[in-house]
Amino acid sequence: MSEIKSKAMAKTELAEITFDDQGLVAAIAQQHDTGEILMMAWMNAESLALTLQTGQAHYWSRSRQSLWHKGESSGQTQQLMDLRVDCDGDTILLSVDQTGVACHTGRRNCFYRAYRNGEWVEIAEVVTSPDDLYGNK
Amino acid sequence: MSEIKSKAMAKTELAEITFDDQGLVAAIAQQHDTGEILMMAWMNAESLALTLQTGQAHYWSRSRQSLWHKGESSGQTQQLMDLRVDCDGDTILLSVDQTGVACHTGRRNCFYRAYRNGEWVEIAEVVTSPDDLYGNK
Repeated sequence: MSEIKSKAMAKTELAEITFDDQGLVAAIAQQHDTGEILMMAWMNAESLALTLQTGQAHYWSRSRQSLWHKGESSGQTQQLMDLRVDCDGDTILLSVDQTGVACHTGRRNCFYRAYRNGEWVEIAEVVTSPDDLYGNK
Repeated sequence: MSEIKSKAMAKTELAEITFDDQGLVAAIAQQHDTGEILMMAWMNAESLALTLQTGQAHYWSRSRQSLWHKGESSGQTQQLMDLRVDCDGDTILLSVDQTGVACHTGRRNCFYRAYRNGEWVEIAEVVTSPDDLYGNK
């Protein structure tokens, strides 16, 4: 699969996506070759357009209430390989090639805690320290 | 990995999950052995407890505003193999063993439309017709 870049969606294509009352749609990022689920975030129409135009994942940060080019601070960008939508249009699946680590904790993906034998256990180690990811940038 | 069944989470463990203002948390279901993303749905605390108690995925249907034992109508249940939570606690990842098909359209997963060359194209076929899934039950 090759990287995809595309013009913004035409209205008819955009209509297949069901944005919620805040103008957002859930977006799952999956590593294209291993199937690893990296993270879940949110997109608005503008971040979706930027993702297609640049070929790199852009989200909407609900906590910062701003556009978020994934990796803008850390360099850990996500190259878009394929973009899918689910049956009822309210979730997007981004097949990506993740540079480095997806999680702000420095782990490869955000789902590093598993519920086993009645407690949460960490199942993935920090690959890159957050200081290295976000320090002096 | 073996099926997990567990008592409902203790309060301290449940506190790691960030339910939204409607009492819901996003839940991604992934086929445990292939990495295929099957669907994305929502859970409340009760559906999470039932999932752990029964070892089968239960969700909260936002459209029906009711508990939803996945497969209750169609027989297409999801056996829980592992349960994970992401870094900020607002998304759960269910590693499951899907019986049959996950999507109500009869496709194996819900993400069967891909945006390629400026249009949505179907990339997966119907495996079991919805009539067979939901008829006469």
